[in-house]
Amino acid sequence: MLQWLRRYRRELLAGDIGAGIVVAMMLIPQGMAYALVAGLPPVVGLYAGILPPILYALFGSSMTQSVGPMVIISLMTATALAPLAAAGSGLYGVLAAQLALLSGVVLLVCGLLRLGFVANFFSRPVMSGFTIGAALVIAQGQIEPLVGADLPAVHLPSLTLGLGSLALLLLARQYLAPLLVRLGMGAGAADTGARLAPMVVVVGATILVPLLGLHEAGVAVTGDVPSGLPGLNLALSHGHWRALLQPALLIGFMIFLISMSAAQTLALKRQEKVNSNYELIGVGVANIGSALTGALPVTGSISRSAVNFAAGAQTPLASVISAVLLALALVAPTGWLTLMPLPALAATIIVAVLGMFDLSTLRTAWRYDRGDALALVATAAGVLVLGVEAGVVIGVMLSMGTLIWRASRPHIAVLGRIAGTEHFRNIERYAAETVPEILMLRIDSNLFFGNVDAVNARIEEELQARPAVRHLVLVMSAVNSIDTTALFALKELNPALKLRGIALHLAEVKGPVLDRLKQSELLGELTGRLYLSAVMASDELSRTTRAASLCPQI
Amino acid sequence: MLQWLRRYRRELLAGDIGAGIVVAMMLIPQGMAYALVAGLPPVVGLYAGILPPILYALFGSSMTQSVGPMVIISLMTATALAPLAAAGSGLYGVLAAQLALLSGVVLLVCGLLRLGFVANFFSRPVMSGFTIGAALVIAQGQIEPLVGADLPAVHLPSLTLGLGSLALLLLARQYLAPLLVRLGMGAGAADTGARLAPMVVVVGATILVPLLGLHEAGVAVTGDVPSGLPGLNLALSHGHWRALLQPALLIGFMIFLISMSAAQTLALKRQEKVNSNYELIGVGVANIGSALTGALPVTGSISRSAVNFAAGAQTPLASVISAVLLALALVAPTGWLTLMPLPALAATIIVAVLGMFDLSTLRTAWRYDRGDALALVATAAGVLVLGVEAGVVIGVMLSMGTLIWRASRPHIAVLGRIAGTEHFRNIERYAAETVPEILMLRIDSNLFFGNVDAVNARIEEELQARPAVRHLVLVMSAVNSIDTTALFALKELNPALKLRGIALHLAEVKGPVLDRLKQSELLGELTGRLYLSAVMASDELSRTTRAASLCPQI
Repeated sequence: MLQWLRRYRRELLAGDIGAGIVVAMMLIPQGMAYALVAGLPPVVGLYAGILPPILYALFGSSMTQSVGPMVIISLMTATALAPLAAAGSGLYGVLAAQLALLSGVVLLVCGLLRLGFVANFFSRPVMSGFTIGAALVIAQGQIEPLVGADLPAVHLPSLTLGLGSLALLLLARQYLAPLLVRLGMGAGAADTGARLAPMVVVVGATILVPLLGLHEAGVAVTGDVPSGLPGLNLALSHGHWRALLQPALLIGFMIFLISMSAAQTLALKRQEKVNSNYELIGVGVANIGSALTGALPVTGSISRSAVNFAAGAQTPLASVISAVLLALALVAPTGWLTLMPLPALAATIIVAVLGMFDLSTLRTAWRYDRGDALALVATAAGVLVLGVEAGVVIGVMLSMGTLIWRASRPHIAVLGRIAGTEHFRNIERYAAETVPEILMLRIDSNLFFGNVDAVNARIEEELQARPAVRHLVLVMSAVNSIDTTALFALKELNPALKLRGIALHLAEVKGPVLDRLKQSELLGELTGRLYLSAVMASDELSRTTRAASLCPQI
Repeated sequence: MLQWLRRYRRELLAGDIGAGIVVAMMLIPQGMAYALVAGLPPVVGLYAGILPPILYALFGSSMTQSVGPMVIISLMTATALAPLAAAGSGLYGVLAAQLALLSGVVLLVCGLLRLGFVANFFSRPVMSGFTIGAALVIAQGQIEPLVGADLPAVHLPSLTLGLGSLALLLLARQYLAPLLVRLGMGAGAADTGARLAPMVVVVGATILVPLLGLHEAGVAVTGDVPSGLPGLNLALSHGHWRALLQPALLIGFMIFLISMSAAQTLALKRQEKVNSNYELIGVGVANIGSALTGALPVTGSISRSAVNFAAGAQTPLASVISAVLLALALVAPTGWLTLMPLPALAATIIVAVLGMFDLSTLRTAWRYDRGDALALVATAAGVLVLGVEAGVVIGVMLSMGTLIWRASRPHIAVLGRIAGTEHFRNIERYAAETVPEILMLRIDSNLFFGNVDAVNARIEEELQARPAVRHLVLVMSAVNSIDTTALFALKELNPALKLRGIALHLAEVKGPVLDRLKQSELLGELTGRLYLSAVMASDELSRTTRAASLCPQI
């Protein structure tokens, strides 16, 4: 931590300042919009862009991560708080900060306990399904503010402003970057410039409001944005700890998954390694900081971090600069922020979640692995039907489910000898010779609780099809580990086979697996032997059985 | 299904009749005791021994499974119903049957959907920890009936009877079978005989009750046992469906796990294969049958099934015979059942759960795999501290947690060439030579969402330690599958390496993995090549790099 500061070189400053400015410009409309998604006053979203990124800069692991409000986490916050308090009430604001505190503490503790591996509980298809589901829920929630439909009917000025903003943003998304390139900008700069379209559209719409008197015509605007920095204080509702615990666990988990995604995407480009435990600590401390300033749960944002990187950020100083700029915007007169029209903000949210509505993972999975594709669709459906919290649980269950389902169908090959060679191959793929008394099975998978039943079943099947077998050789060349459950399965298989007059042998056991097996009684109990290679097992056992059949009295 | 009946041969009959009698004798005290554990009238436990085993005989997959009340499932039933109704009330009985119905329907539906693989969500250490925790909870619950402590103080006659029964049962457990062998019995018959000790002790204690007037002295007895068969009717409380759903899912899961354990233990001995989907259907239908006769959730019992097998059961006819005998006992005058002293029944339960308190898995795991041992202890502690329902969830989480934790630390070896040979080995284990421009990594694990981050991190680490590398060769000889998440990781690694001037090659990709990769764009996008073997990759890439260094202008 803070290595980046000790090694800071002056040449990096220009990039960091540029990125800091760009990210601050992105954060102003985004922060306000995402606070609204969470059911909070817009200014809270700006608060969340100040202390959290500074703390992440001190404790986090990714160099170019942009920590702050993020739309999915805002949705989860709104979902968690809806049953507990009325949106907009004082209690609601207190609970949002308390939720950030609790999530932050959970993340920090997990980081200190080195539980970073929990990031691996979600497969990518499931994460994609979750994101798609959440994007749809968020977009649907923005239709009302977009068209001003909290009024008795659709409100024409709001509708015009909302759809106009939406159309501009969609056009910008498609054509602005190529246009800027054609105007002579570099590709990277053009891309970054295009990312500022939401800011430009919102500012433009905000200028229109007083010009056309739209707020007096009934277009909803952000309203009072108090000037000045957030105070450092922590109001807590002690009656709500219990109710907030489960949401905090689920939100903490998603905060971590999202920030890890963002960090890893950038790490690949920057030739960095992400340490998941430091990442836990970084976002944990950032959330505690968010709570201290009365804000809401925050995370590393994939899209904003990508902009930060593309705009030239070299170190977390970029985030610190963007935080300072945000603070300055709050210290300066905030009158201009009070007239931001909500339909235009809704348009920016819809365009942002459109960017999350990515079907390429589904397309690839559909062709490559139907099970993963179904898990993706089921997770998205779960979020849509049962809500975003249930969606997290469903996502973990489906990730684990596909894993265990696949594990329960291990690839096992009956081996035969390629005539005249020392090579043993799958008899279904090669013309390989077998000996009736010897069954050689190669298990192409680690042995663990998820597949021992399937391995046992396959062994039984092959033995029933080959009544002459007297020697079962398990060829372990593809087995990289054997867990306790599988150890017991082997320990129980051995005497069961002995009763049937079949000896159990192991061949080609890998070094680390053998080291571990030596800690158990299995090798001592084995009715058969341990062979270095399949060919040695086959040669010796063939000799034995031939001798036995020639001289049955022996 | 029912194949066993079509193929039935007369020679099997003697074994089935003998086993049927033994199991019925075991079931009478067991059924009554386990109904008490579930908070139900004792006769309900006998009802659960009639229709369920008959239905399992028709639909189940294991030949010698004994389906009926089981003490852990009774404990879970009591835990589930405690917050919903008072034990002994009419509603309580209705809800117990409703729970059996719901569990049965869940199991049946899972069976029809072929979800048998869910049995693999529990590792053996976790199952052992769950059993130990449940055994302790059950034993603790039996101390009160054993010593008659529902009276103002310990009740001396109850205490004497309870501890006396306990002492006899413990002695029988230790010495009866050897004694019977010494008296000339065969080992198998002696073992079966010893298993009937609880029946003998309970009958003996029951005879003492009227003889010594113990029930008048305040010793609790079973009380009214209505004569006659249970009626086929299904009383339901429609207001409780929602409250019963989660317990039914957890109980259904444990019913399945326990019956699969029982079936598999016996299958190994009988040279059978267990079909987990048929097993789901079998116990599902059995539970629906239990509900129809107003009984409680049932499952295959490991101990009773073992006795059934040992007593000579050849087919499910043994279970049908035992069910018929139980029905006859109910049709006959049931007066003798009404005076069974509860302290003696409590003693049989304590001895039964002592048999479940097996520390050998813990001992083996402690030496073989510390992580598995810790998961065992944590699951047992979870059951003790948070209860048996939370214990199931904790068990699944710990099974999955150890799996993902292990997956997140895959074994990856940097390969070098054994001088003068075509063999490539781990440079940490062998004196093997490497080429500065070529990094060969062998990944000793399947590639999936649980380990892609770790693989990426290791690649980055090795590349940072070897700045001269221009070719990264992933040797896939130990990779049996690549899931969608890992496919994306490779697809993203490829261009990231390209930016750094490093080509990505794959070597020794297995047939099935390659077949699948051909469904994706990865092979087309690859900056490097696909090599059949590590040696081919090394030879060609060494030539290329040597040529490049000799003639840098090329």
